[in-house]
Amino acid sequence: MAGSSFGNIFRITTWGESHGNALGVVVDGCPAGLSLGVEDIQAYLDRRKPGQSKITTSRKEADEVEILSGIFEGRTTGTPLSMLVHNTSQRSGDYSEIANYYRPGHADYTFDAKYGFRDYRGGGRSSGRETIGRVAAGAVASKLLLEFGIGLRAYTKSIGPVTIDRGQFDAQAILSTPTCMPDRNASAQAQAYLEQCMKNHDSAGGVIECVIDGVPAGLGEPVFGKLDALLSQAMMSIGAVKAVEIGDGVEVTTRHGSENNDSFHMEDGQVTKTSNHAGGILGGISDGSQIILRTHIKPTPSIFSPQKTVNRQGEDIEISIKGRHDPIIVPRAVVVVETMAALVIADALLTNASAKLDNLKKIYGR
Amino acid sequence: MAGSSFGNIFRITTWGESHGNALGVVVDGCPAGLSLGVEDIQAYLDRRKPGQSKITTSRKEADEVEILSGIFEGRTTGTPLSMLVHNTSQRSGDYSEIANYYRPGHADYTFDAKYGFRDYRGGGRSSGRETIGRVAAGAVASKLLLEFGIGLRAYTKSIGPVTIDRGQFDAQAILSTPTCMPDRNASAQAQAYLEQCMKNHDSAGGVIECVIDGVPAGLGEPVFGKLDALLSQAMMSIGAVKAVEIGDGVEVTTRHGSENNDSFHMEDGQVTKTSNHAGGILGGISDGSQIILRTHIKPTPSIFSPQKTVNRQGEDIEISIKGRHDPIIVPRAVVVVETMAALVIADALLTNASAKLDNLKKIYGR
Amino acid sequence: MAGSSFGNIFRITTWGESHGNALGVVVDGCPAGLSLGVEDIQAYLDRRKPGQSKITTSRKEADEVEILSGIFEGRTTGTPLSMLVHNTSQRSGDYSEIANYYRPGHADYTFDAKYGFRDYRGGGRSSGRETIGRVAAGAVASKLLLEFGIGLRAYTKSIGPVTIDRGQFDAQAILSTPTCMPDRNASAQAQAYLEQCMKNHDSAGGVIECVIDGVPAGLGEPVFGKLDALLSQAMMSIGAVKAVEIGDGVEVTTRHGSENNDSFHMEDGQVTKTSNHAGGILGGISDGSQIILRTHIKPTPSIFSPQKTVNRQGEDIEISIKGRHDPIIVPRAVVVVETMAALVIADALLTNASAKLDNLKKIYGR
Amino acid sequence: MAGSSFGNIFRITTWGESHGNALGVVVDGCPAGLSLGVEDIQAYLDRRKPGQSKITTSRKEADEVEILSGIFEGRTTGTPLSMLVHNTSQRSGDYSEIANYYRPGHADYTFDAKYGFRDYRGGGRSSGRETIGRVAAGAVASKLLLEFGIGLRAYTKSIGPVTIDRGQFDAQAILSTPTCMPDRNASAQAQAYLEQCMKNHDSAGGVIECVIDGVPAGLGEPVFGKLDALLSQAMMSIGAVKAVEIGDGVEVTTRHGSENNDSFHMEDGQVTKTSNHAGGILGGISDGSQIILRTHIKPTPSIFSPQKTVNRQGEDIEISIKGRHDPIIVPRAVVVVETMAALVIADALLTNASAKLDNLKKIYGR
Repeated sequence: MAGSSFGNIFRITTWGESHGNALGVVVDGCPAGLSLGVEDIQAYLDRRKPGQSKITTSRKEADEVEILSGIFEGRTTGTPLSMLVHNTSQRSGDYSEIANYYRPGHADYTFDAKYGFRDYRGGGRSSGRETIGRVAAGAVASKLLLEFGIGLRAYTKSIGPVTIDRGQFDAQAILSTPTCMPDRNASAQAQAYLEQCMKNHDSAGGVIECVIDGVPAGLGEPVFGKLDALLSQAMMSIGAVKAVEIGDGVEVTTRHGSENNDSFHMEDGQVTKTSNHAGGILGGISDGSQIILRTHIKPTPSIFSPQKTVNRQGEDIEISIKGRHDPIIVPRAVVVVETMAALVIADALLTNASAKLDNLKKIYGR
Repeated sequence: MAGSSFGNIFRITTWGESHGNALGVVVDGCPAGLSLGVEDIQAYLDRRKPGQSKITTSRKEADEVEILSGIFEGRTTGTPLSMLVHNTSQRSGDYSEIANYYRPGHADYTFDAKYGFRDYRGGGRSSGRETIGRVAAGAVASKLLLEFGIGLRAYTKSIGPVTIDRGQFDAQAILSTPTCMPDRNASAQAQAYLEQCMKNHDSAGGVIECVIDGVPAGLGEPVFGKLDALLSQAMMSIGAVKAVEIGDGVEVTTRHGSENNDSFHMEDGQVTKTSNHAGGILGGISDGSQIILRTHIKPTPSIFSPQKTVNRQGEDIEISIKGRHDPIIVPRAVVVVETMAALVIADALLTNASAKLDNLKKIYGR
Repeated sequence: MAGSSFGNIFRITTWGESHGNALGVVVDGCPAGLSLGVEDIQAYLDRRKPGQSKITTSRKEADEVEILSGIFEGRTTGTPLSMLVHNTSQRSGDYSEIANYYRPGHADYTFDAKYGFRDYRGGGRSSGRETIGRVAAGAVASKLLLEFGIGLRAYTKSIGPVTIDRGQFDAQAILSTPTCMPDRNASAQAQAYLEQCMKNHDSAGGVIECVIDGVPAGLGEPVFGKLDALLSQAMMSIGAVKAVEIGDGVEVTTRHGSENNDSFHMEDGQVTKTSNHAGGILGGISDGSQIILRTHIKPTPSIFSPQKTVNRQGEDIEISIKGRHDPIIVPRAVVVVETMAALVIADALLTNASAKLDNLKKIYGR
Repeated sequence: MAGSSFGNIFRITTWGESHGNALGVVVDGCPAGLSLGVEDIQAYLDRRKPGQSKITTSRKEADEVEILSGIFEGRTTGTPLSMLVHNTSQRSGDYSEIANYYRPGHADYTFDAKYGFRDYRGGGRSSGRETIGRVAAGAVASKLLLEFGIGLRAYTKSIGPVTIDRGQFDAQAILSTPTCMPDRNASAQAQAYLEQCMKNHDSAGGVIECVIDGVPAGLGEPVFGKLDALLSQAMMSIGAVKAVEIGDGVEVTTRHGSENNDSFHMEDGQVTKTSNHAGGILGGISDGSQIILRTHIKPTPSIFSPQKTVNRQGEDIEISIKGRHDPIIVPRAVVVVETMAALVIADALLTNASAKLDNLKKIYGR
């Protein structure tokens, strides 16, 4: 129960540490017959690679994925997909210093408290590299969802004080700016802001938004398996996330019901919501409109400025963290948010298959 | 997989609809030997009862809990606790109107889309009465946590535009004001605001905060079983919740790392955090300081003002909802937030028992 | 994790003790739209009722089931079904003697070892009455399976040394003989054997066979979710079961492959097995032929003859068990075997719904 | 939900096909602090390697395990252990024939029925090579159990008509005879029998027994999580297993209660069973005596004699299977039985840690 599995039917189990031999994931429960190749996975992993701009660490990792099982003649077989990425630039390095104290804002102290010791090389299991398995698995989920016309798009909504202008929305910019902002102007401002942070030996946070189109009404289970509840778990399970919003999120608390309720009307013979404050989910179940969620991410805790902390001997000390660290987590977390959301939706799609007798009659044809 | 179970070891399964015969819960995995009586449960259920003030529905429900199994000679036996509350005021009523259309902001449409039909009497399974099982189970979890010095306290932080003044914090007021605000002045303002909402045939939302003291460092599992991830799922699984924050939440995104990191220092021989922006959780694992979370709740969707919607025949119509409805969900949800948090912490406490060999050696004595 | 849940999608949670207020079950994940009434459940519970012949205890229990949730207008809603049976003949009784010692062949000692104490009234949670919840849930599963042309039939194959003659198979006799044997002649012999056991203050065991017709090929998951693996867990989870066989079971170990392999041939355009040594399961997946399993049940441990044991004070003592006890468990366990098998098949049917992309395309119609 | 995970807390997920790139396992939930090295795993894998005698296939596989994560400085970290074995002798081979028909006794037909197609190279996921992951994970479980004085020993009890003489029990012989029989005389007879089978182009089955010493009383959960129920699932999940017995198993059905009950007496201050017909489990919970189970295995379905079957075009055909096949599965399955049993006991040990309040008080020290 160390918590490395996620999902009920489309179920993933990730493994690996930042400086171990490799990191990876097993995807169990992917339906048979999905066309899938290594390039489908690599495209997503490339979006989270370090070393792609001035505002990410210069640590170079090829992060080339291998698929070890579960595919035959180009299609998923219904049995587990095992995928891994070798750690190529893990250096033996000198971690004796970091081994001995607790970095503020990191999981060093809590891992020690829980397990009695920890893999102190680069954060071990609490490293951002742990998300490699999630992204690889989420790439499979995304490919599956495409078969049903479901598409996901995550992007940076804000970095520090700089927020995108929705009027300037440019989807192309998500993949082509170093900030993953869909607004080139805001992106330029955010870059300037981040460069100043780096000069100050400091770091910044931001907000990632994810929209999901094409989700049929009916996904998500009542009570604890609500679609928004699972999306929240998924988002908050990403390191450094401190808040999650669905639809209009925190803004709804100061509204009246008459303002916040989304009316229904008929459109092209379909029940349609006139507005979408709810963000596509009612009572924990998708309502057929766009699903919208936001994930709030704290500034990178690894900063070069001196900080106060304690060591394992219980002494107050002052430290200065060295090494290569992104001044912001947000841009590289965009694809993590998107793929985690894909995992939730894919699992909900499969789970919903047995929600009513009629569905089963369609399959078993009796 | 209809999603009515929560927790891994301390695992609950709730059941029941708003207008069925009864609602209840089965708690499986509660350790044997916990002193427990019906009064321990009733005290929590009484906190969510309707009809206690002008700002809750006048619908009267006794909500008296029965414990049907799992207790012997005043202690839990380690086998399932079954608890139920009979619905005493369920009226046969005329629901033919509501049966035929989709109330905005409710789960009517999504349940129909998912299951092909729904129990339309008072919301069925998506009713707020579903939380009875959660609160009863959470009362058990809270009693268990007390054995380990862990205490939870939830309260209303804001209602519409009215926010508590932390300088005026009065814990007594939580249970004695109709708003569950720990600030009598703010509570009076919030009541006035709600009375105006009712006059306008409208409703309001708000924020609930929950603090948890005494949690030992080390609870929560890395990756998907992070303590904050499970708290988020728990909170977002409560109807009408649209956002969840841990610690400083959404505020962290505009800070620098140097501002947001909590330093460590030694205090009474203990590793101690100098500040608590993180809200008691680092890397998904409790750090020994106070756990803090906030839950954002939308305005009650049932309002008496006319609203546009569609009926099952696919016609655009205008409706006016009748009946008894709270103008705000927040005060009655306070105990739901608190007990859901208790369930997460209790389960994490049990799960962590096997996290390291040393723990097991203490139990098996070899 | 006290272990009272079973199944992945069609998931049940049972609760209750032999002398508590009530016993019951929550069924979560039953598809919406299944026509279901209390009489569907009662018919199965009536098959396990005591007091129906000389060879079962004369303890009278009405065992009338109530359905508390999950049904609306005669159909399942897709949300949890809660069902319970009140204990009507629970007597306050004097259990002080039994409280103090460990009955051979019972779970008294092991419950004390595990939990530190136990509900000693009539076996508590380890009583045969615990199966009430299983049977009620299995009745729902059986009704669901009938919608897909899947039918189950369990019966007594042998009691002590008396075995049915397959040439005399009479399905009517299963429900009308006190032994549940499908052979009236064997049943009469078995009754005589049991009456002699009772005279000797002793008890007997036997074998229950269960056959399942109409299961489509393809149910069951590879590796740990094999259909036979789950059937074995289901069977062995019934108290007093000491062995489980699938198909030809223990007999296969002395055969050659050429004798044991079932050839395939075409019949009415269908791939058909020429024999069925495998009992309808190949590689853990149903092959479209009849599923056959056998469950071996030990003699009732409660016997009136004097027995040696120890008490909680650690003293060697001799005891004579009193009260009302069946001289054999087998006939009343027949319906338990059948309903547990139904639960496994129903869950496999639902799980298989998402095994291949084609199934999902049938549901989501894209 | 493709079923490749097993266990609740000590949870494994296996992956890989017979002719894929590699096979492996992720172990999540192993407690931190266990001393573990690659040699601990390799020793178990070496016991299942092919090519070690005349009665196993001459296919040579190095089966060298790599540990990719979860160990730091020679101890488990509490995070997932990922282990894999590369397939070195997978030949491109010509499988076009086997691709087109259904081998009797194999899962070819059922995989096609379930998934619409299958990886036909050497059985794919239904191959015996799938057990590599189980054995690697079970080696970890065995090492963990040793810390608590729990030891497992599996051996061949019979091959075809040849059964060991318990009077000649020689533990050394288990690892040194090609049959894994603890009786050299019986082993020699069994070998002669198998050589005759091979001459006849036929195969044989047999029985594996497993005994487990040192298990403390109290492991296993009531109802569905019974220790024997989980052992049965574990055993029956191994390919080719057709029956499972606990303790005296099928023999108990013809006994009287007075014969079958195990009396208790005091011995060295311990509650002790005078006999052990029950096989160390009462009411699904370990009773402190030796746990005994038997697993019945069918003859290898791959035989060289001609067999009737059908092809994918739905034509009746006759086939002769070629290639390298063991004439018996039993000796190589001995270590699989032993390690699967270890996984069940390890998981039960961890699960039981939270069974009573006293256990938790020992850990959390309050």
